[in-house]
Amino acid sequence: MKKILAELLTIGDEILYGQIVDTNSQWMSVELDKVGIKVIRKTTVGDQEDEILTAFAEAEQRADIVLITGGLGPTSDDLTKPLLAKYFNCELQIHEEALAEVTAFFKSRGREMTEINKQQAALPICCTKITNPIGTAPGMWFEKNGKVFMSMPGVPHEMKKMMTERVIPKLKETFQTPQIYHKVIRTIGIGESFLADKIATWEKSLPSHIKLAYLPSLGEVKLRLTGFSSSSSSLEAEIDELVKKLQPFAGEYIYGYGDEPIEVAIGKMLRDRKLTISMAESCTGGYLTHLITSVAGCSDYFLGSMVPYAYEIKMRQLGVKPEILEKYGAVSEPTIIEMANIVRAKFNTDIGVATSGIAGPGGATPEKPVGMVWIAYSDKHQTITKKLQLSQDRMINIRMASAAVLNLIRLSLPK
Amino acid sequence: MKKILAELLTIGDEILYGQIVDTNSQWMSVELDKVGIKVIRKTTVGDQEDEILTAFAEAEQRADIVLITGGLGPTSDDLTKPLLAKYFNCELQIHEEALAEVTAFFKSRGREMTEINKQQAALPICCTKITNPIGTAPGMWFEKNGKVFMSMPGVPHEMKKMMTERVIPKLKETFQTPQIYHKVIRTIGIGESFLADKIATWEKSLPSHIKLAYLPSLGEVKLRLTGFSSSSSSLEAEIDELVKKLQPFAGEYIYGYGDEPIEVAIGKMLRDRKLTISMAESCTGGYLTHLITSVAGCSDYFLGSMVPYAYEIKMRQLGVKPEILEKYGAVSEPTIIEMANIVRAKFNTDIGVATSGIAGPGGATPEKPVGMVWIAYSDKHQTITKKLQLSQDRMINIRMASAAVLNLIRLSLPK
Repeated sequence: MKKILAELLTIGDEILYGQIVDTNSQWMSVELDKVGIKVIRKTTVGDQEDEILTAFAEAEQRADIVLITGGLGPTSDDLTKPLLAKYFNCELQIHEEALAEVTAFFKSRGREMTEINKQQAALPICCTKITNPIGTAPGMWFEKNGKVFMSMPGVPHEMKKMMTERVIPKLKETFQTPQIYHKVIRTIGIGESFLADKIATWEKSLPSHIKLAYLPSLGEVKLRLTGFSSSSSSLEAEIDELVKKLQPFAGEYIYGYGDEPIEVAIGKMLRDRKLTISMAESCTGGYLTHLITSVAGCSDYFLGSMVPYAYEIKMRQLGVKPEILEKYGAVSEPTIIEMANIVRAKFNTDIGVATSGIAGPGGATPEKPVGMVWIAYSDKHQTITKKLQLSQDRMINIRMASAAVLNLIRLSLPK
Repeated sequence: MKKILAELLTIGDEILYGQIVDTNSQWMSVELDKVGIKVIRKTTVGDQEDEILTAFAEAEQRADIVLITGGLGPTSDDLTKPLLAKYFNCELQIHEEALAEVTAFFKSRGREMTEINKQQAALPICCTKITNPIGTAPGMWFEKNGKVFMSMPGVPHEMKKMMTERVIPKLKETFQTPQIYHKVIRTIGIGESFLADKIATWEKSLPSHIKLAYLPSLGEVKLRLTGFSSSSSSLEAEIDELVKKLQPFAGEYIYGYGDEPIEVAIGKMLRDRKLTISMAESCTGGYLTHLITSVAGCSDYFLGSMVPYAYEIKMRQLGVKPEILEKYGAVSEPTIIEMANIVRAKFNTDIGVATSGIAGPGGATPEKPVGMVWIAYSDKHQTITKKLQLSQDRMINIRMASAAVLNLIRLSLPK
């Protein structure tokens, strides 16, 4: 089967100068891989006419699909659109439907539209407009000699929505993409090398047409099984069977499958059990609550949080007993037990959780180094605590401690 | 003055497949920029002989300096070294000094050296070896027709050390590096196109050796001025003068310069004024508090937050009057005023801020659509409210509302 090849072309001086990290192209690689399109090259060029035109011509030689991001804003340093018009030798013209969309976008936000904004609706007449549902710069799809050029905004959330909802389906339609089936198994609470050890026997038993990848992130490891076949239904059954066989090796760490992060899984568990939760966060500083409230519909189970950052607030607002704070300090097991129990009682929820630790870089003592964090879970039957020793990095500590609390909830909820 | 041009070439399937994000090239861009070497292109290719050789040849055409990372490990899919030997038409031979270094490396770690490890000391005879002080794969420096090819390991900490200690000094010695000066001006509270309109006159007045770029992100727009000159002191003064001239056009939106995000700027303002702050977050669900607590040392001014997500918690825990909640609802000006004033009083801080809105996708009514958010700032002299109409996207609403509160704090703090 002939492979379908793609090149990712990123346009923008801000990437060449290193002022932003290009995370778009990594995300795009993963999405293209899922539908069996092979990325053969990534190229970044600056906001320079000759560089951009050369990059278009080179990419057309190498790839079937050229996906372009960036350089679509309304300002004068954004060159992608006029240069695509030049490259495909056609005029820019106000596109009536695009103009209506841009106008509606500004109207819905109660903002005035300037002449510059209006120019975002000007498109090369030889392209197909791809609607941008959450921004003002439309996407542009060009076809020539069996090759596709697709230009998208560089703003990550606009690009992702356009890619998922419009571009990927249109690419699958235009090209004969092979049958590929992916299954992502999500684990939490175990590091990559320990997990690899535990599942080594299972991994060795995988057939050659099914590939395994480890995708570690802070506090989690995802396993991705990818199968290639001419018949997707048998492949799906085969992979599901392999996932079943994985259970005895790693079942206790698996919290879900596919795209759902741990906060969504926790939300479902709470909703299913008709339980409510509240939080008292000290060192995680609101991040844990943010994860919980990032899930739409969380008001079904999440009632509220307190972030009692200062000593005073821990005592006066949350209500931790001064004698406990004084005797053991804020980062201690007796304090974390109090915090979880009190927030549960005060906020009148079924479950209360709490965090307290040294996020760093300041605040450490010889007994309480940076990265030391206490977490606790409380319900009417039990209070469970855990002590973590994380890293030297403030943001990593905040994120890993939050993930550890979500895992503690998963393990502690009534079955 | 002739510019010195560099191309960054990254080799590895793991980047094309999206299994890792390439952060090396961003770091390298920043370091090269500091010494006046202009990155004109970034290229990533996979572990394929023909792709790599083509990339070498293309890069040699375009750039004076080709910096290569990746593909230097001891395994069979690492092709960089044999292909550089092939490209420069010279043999691979064990390099005695490199062998001594690799041997010492293994000895110091008490590990045995295999034949594969020994092969890491084999180098093309036409290159200059660059010592890897913290790893086993040496760097390789090639010169040909006034162009430099430099190959480094892909492991970030090894690459960074080699680059800082060996490669940058050697490049400065080999090439006559020019002076470049960047200044980033950070604005908040105005969209890219509106800002462009406001500063159009100023932008037109910029001299040709100074370039302006717009770098928008959620709720913010950064402006970057880049100047090229033979004397860096006059350039710095010239750009600082231009920034001064920008003030009448956009001064009210400028909150800072360089690398510091708005939450750091707010932290400094609070610390300078010896003021403390607390927050009552409903629709932003902890994200605003997370931004504030992501700044190390925030305990100097941030005392605590409440996230009164449920109606009950707003009443019983925060203490919003039931008659106000019942008459106007949670998303209303009277309620947001109460929330900001109460959290300030309860947490005994100088300033209190609050958010309440419809983050979406659920919870909307005809009068209160998704994206409608009330925010408030309260100190002992004043309570200021603002109504926002944001987007249809939950995460965008959470992030933009949080940015709007930070901007409201900036604008409302006593001078």
